[in-house]
Amino acid sequence: MELIHMIFGSIGSVGGGLALGKEGPLVHTGACIASLLGQGGSTKYHLSPRWLQVFKSDRDRRDLVTCGCAAGVAAAFRAPVGGVLFALEEVTSWWRSQLMWRVFFTSAIVAVVVRTAMGWCKSGKCGHFGSGGFIIWDISGGQDDYSFEELFPMAIIGIIGGLLGALFNQLTLYITYWRRKSLHKRGNRVKIIEACLISVITSIISFGLPLLRKCSPCPESDANSDLECPRPPGMYGNYVNFYCSKDKEYNDLATIFFNTQDDAIRNLFSAKTIHEYSAQSLLTFLVMFYTLAVVTFGTAVPAGQFVPGIMIGSTYGRLVGMFVVKFYRKLNIEEGTYALLGAASFLGGSMRMTVSLCVIMVEITNNLKLLPLIMLVLLISKAVGDAFNEGLYEEQAHLRGIPLLESRPKYHMRKMTAKEACRRQKVVSFPRVVKVANVFSILRSNKHNGFPVVDHGRNGEALVIGLILRSHLLVLLQSKLDFQHSPLPCDLGMGSIPIRHNFSEFVKPASSTGLSIEDIHLTPDDFEMYIDLTPFLNPSPYVVPEDMSLTKVYNLFRQLGLRHVFVVPRAPRVIGLITRKDLLVEENDDSATVELQSTSSSEI
Amino acid sequence: MELIHMIFGSIGSVGGGLALGKEGPLVHTGACIASLLGQGGSTKYHLSPRWLQVFKSDRDRRDLVTCGCAAGVAAAFRAPVGGVLFALEEVTSWWRSQLMWRVFFTSAIVAVVVRTAMGWCKSGKCGHFGSGGFIIWDISGGQDDYSFEELFPMAIIGIIGGLLGALFNQLTLYITYWRRKSLHKRGNRVKIIEACLISVITSIISFGLPLLRKCSPCPESDANSDLECPRPPGMYGNYVNFYCSKDKEYNDLATIFFNTQDDAIRNLFSAKTIHEYSAQSLLTFLVMFYTLAVVTFGTAVPAGQFVPGIMIGSTYGRLVGMFVVKFYRKLNIEEGTYALLGAASFLGGSMRMTVSLCVIMVEITNNLKLLPLIMLVLLISKAVGDAFNEGLYEEQAHLRGIPLLESRPKYHMRKMTAKEACRRQKVVSFPRVVKVANVFSILRSNKHNGFPVVDHGRNGEALVIGLILRSHLLVLLQSKLDFQHSPLPCDLGMGSIPIRHNFSEFVKPASSTGLSIEDIHLTPDDFEMYIDLTPFLNPSPYVVPEDMSLTKVYNLFRQLGLRHVFVVPRAPRVIGLITRKDLLVEENDDSATVELQSTSSSEI
Repeated sequence: MELIHMIFGSIGSVGGGLALGKEGPLVHTGACIASLLGQGGSTKYHLSPRWLQVFKSDRDRRDLVTCGCAAGVAAAFRAPVGGVLFALEEVTSWWRSQLMWRVFFTSAIVAVVVRTAMGWCKSGKCGHFGSGGFIIWDISGGQDDYSFEELFPMAIIGIIGGLLGALFNQLTLYITYWRRKSLHKRGNRVKIIEACLISVITSIISFGLPLLRKCSPCPESDANSDLECPRPPGMYGNYVNFYCSKDKEYNDLATIFFNTQDDAIRNLFSAKTIHEYSAQSLLTFLVMFYTLAVVTFGTAVPAGQFVPGIMIGSTYGRLVGMFVVKFYRKLNIEEGTYALLGAASFLGGSMRMTVSLCVIMVEITNNLKLLPLIMLVLLISKAVGDAFNEGLYEEQAHLRGIPLLESRPKYHMRKMTAKEACRRQKVVSFPRVVKVANVFSILRSNKHNGFPVVDHGRNGEALVIGLILRSHLLVLLQSKLDFQHSPLPCDLGMGSIPIRHNFSEFVKPASSTGLSIEDIHLTPDDFEMYIDLTPFLNPSPYVVPEDMSLTKVYNLFRQLGLRHVFVVPRAPRVIGLITRKDLLVEENDDSATVELQSTSSSEI
Repeated sequence: MELIHMIFGSIGSVGGGLALGKEGPLVHTGACIASLLGQGGSTKYHLSPRWLQVFKSDRDRRDLVTCGCAAGVAAAFRAPVGGVLFALEEVTSWWRSQLMWRVFFTSAIVAVVVRTAMGWCKSGKCGHFGSGGFIIWDISGGQDDYSFEELFPMAIIGIIGGLLGALFNQLTLYITYWRRKSLHKRGNRVKIIEACLISVITSIISFGLPLLRKCSPCPESDANSDLECPRPPGMYGNYVNFYCSKDKEYNDLATIFFNTQDDAIRNLFSAKTIHEYSAQSLLTFLVMFYTLAVVTFGTAVPAGQFVPGIMIGSTYGRLVGMFVVKFYRKLNIEEGTYALLGAASFLGGSMRMTVSLCVIMVEITNNLKLLPLIMLVLLISKAVGDAFNEGLYEEQAHLRGIPLLESRPKYHMRKMTAKEACRRQKVVSFPRVVKVANVFSILRSNKHNGFPVVDHGRNGEALVIGLILRSHLLVLLQSKLDFQHSPLPCDLGMGSIPIRHNFSEFVKPASSTGLSIEDIHLTPDDFEMYIDLTPFLNPSPYVVPEDMSLTKVYNLFRQLGLRHVFVVPRAPRVIGLITRKDLLVEENDDSATVELQSTSSSEI
């Protein structure tokens, strides 16, 4: 089962592995493929082969989506370990050790597939794919040492990154909010017009601004550098000649605008391009690109946030670097290093990741010796950013109403109890055997997703026997297979109840909204029937006592990835107390093992 | 508070950062310093300054120890990100996002401190420290490409690694078991004799075996290589002349044995040392070193497992590499690459880490382009090893009786209920106000660490009001401050109970075994007194219903890092149902916020 799981996870990833482009769509693609696999194919497009039916539970689907995201990052940046850590730090809020192993498997397969595909594409017949080698922006030949004095400007880069990143999050939050409230409600046509409009504005700015900029003379050719200035027509790379005289002149603003973003970043990171850009051009580009990134974010275009973030960060990083080079003349300082740190700081200030960002930055630049500096800059930018708002993904998830629990409970929860948190919704419970008419009317009258089921014990006292989900009730109502005439439990004295349902019917497809109560049509005869809920309920959901601190409840939800928790009165007595040792002792305790074997054999 | 936490975490690490040596002691040192800080200094050595009293809880201490371990790895291998991931994957079983940030902070500080210290020590005045640069075994100039055919021998390395690693775990398990049962019980003197004996045997073998080996002629001097053969006296590094004629001869077995392990590994990994070692020498060394490593593991000597593991792995990796070089003559293959993969495979097969090992291997060798291969090899070796037994650390933790919960519950737990797991110990509960004599006799008569406290509600029914820890009861008995004459609760009508204890008295020092019931001496008068337990109990421990599956209970323990869980009867009714949305909605819901503010202001 687990093996199948992992193999499918990696199938989802290979699709991403062969593509080239921005990372946002790739991560999205990976997650989508994984999600499709997780629901056993798509019924809408008649793609639901039998061998895909192994994934039944929500948990499998969550795990697959996590693997898919990791695969996307691994493929986009050729950063397999970074992908694993991205999935760990940013994607999943509920991490288990088994998941680590699966995600790692997925990433490893992606890495090998991408590497092999790049070997086949070496001759250049696959277009841009494979250019730049396995390391996208290799700067391993650059600065690999730093002096104590440089720590100060680097800290400043961290602070700038934190400020600009927090500002970016805040601006995109406002714009997305406005867009959702007023713009995107008017239909899909508006979305297309918006996207077209923005791309036209982007084009005008990209062409117009370099026209206003004067040409610069080419630097004297350097024996170490294989860069031609200006670049020959038809080639990609550096020193764009843009309406300049052909001879030894280039336009530095056009060099940033008229390259693929990959090449532009490579130039900014590179140590060989000292004095290529003037401070004025960098500043112009920074302002324009930042504004465009803010406006573009949230349009109906699948676009990533990593590469634009690296562009913004490396621009101001290089600006700082230029001043540092002027200020500390004696030291061996390269502007490219500061561009790299700037990129790290902006991503850290906006996305607030730490370890995964660190690893991704190292994996895409192959300069391990700068790792301490990257860590330092990330530390500062994240701390500065956290002082203002939350990370980009968290803010957007909040805005979209995705019930994503943050890593730590809110402060006010300390003073609240579990009972207070659920005071707003009245609990509706079902008896064990329930009339269909009652189910129908209760499901109609409220929108709860889970209902407690209460039965009477042998002594006549009430007992909560489990939790039934709305979605399961809807399936039961629709299929009508389990309706019965008698209001008595269908216990046949054998302890087992015949289940007429295929388990897969209860799996909610992720791509649709699932069944709704309006879809269900029952005859008056049906309404008089009964359902015994016992086989379909979760017999032991997690419970909390009514006066437990909400902080503790929060941690329970967050750490176990729960959806529902019952709040119950304090218990009258304690039957037992389980300690860690009770969960460990089984192995070495022979008597327990024997007892266990007898238990399991009697159950066969 | 958090800042203090992190700063102290990094203080603990700086101590480790300046030392050089094997990683085991360093990780240990980091954890010890952190643990000392966590308990507010050491009372035994009169080092308990006031400013250390901020860490009160077990959780703080656990977090600090995690930070300390990460700092140790970060300092030993100069692998800061590897340290973070090591702490995440191997050290802590209970991971929170806040912890990631703290551990990352610690590692970043370690990285910067180590880097700065290495800058100061450049001239060589700090001994071995700083030799090898920030990357210990830099092989970035070596093989960075591989062909499809090579994947097969690499998979074989993975399988060998898995087999040898699993065998290593099993052998060390048996030997450690025997040692603890029969050898170490006889006192500390035996431990010293054992350590001396093993070191003598090691020395005899290290000197004796090279003597039996013939000398080899030096390879023709290579212009690219700056290695001298044989190495000049007083120098470290390659080509050891060991009773060979001074002129152009060296002893290849002595070259492995008579170097620091650092240098030996560097030679094994290096691409420049092709044909330096004969297969016979490598095999001899492998057998001897493997045996010695098995025997030495578990002696009373602080020794790490990483560096010996890398030695073993790189030896057989290089052996495989030699055959591959012979077999695929056309390809550009280097033995050093296979040595690196061998090292990764043995560590993976023995310790069963994935992501952290990957990052550590990349951080210590600086050859990012081999990352896909390292991942592949780790994947295979871990899978092969898992087929036989558990990881080295898990096995040893089991043996030592450390209640470390594995990542996934045992299969048989699915068929057990919570009630069955706790059937072996009878629950002893306390009333709210308890007679001192009763507390004393109960603590004497059993060894439970936690007791439920049961009180009577307004209607006279019994109610479980919380959990009291044995250690807290012992503190109460010893201090006698809270004894009272009346058997009535000491409610003063104000809702608050005067607490006469300083909170820090309840913190159990980690370095001692804590109070024992035998340490407490009470007068007959004391026995007639009463204690009101209300202020000292945990009012809402987590509870599970009696028939919950043990698998679910296990996950609760594991994910929340619990120590005690109450097993209670099924609830008679559900007061409320909390969903994820209930935990999120507070922020945007104005009415809730107002209500909350009024609640908190009334409490002031």
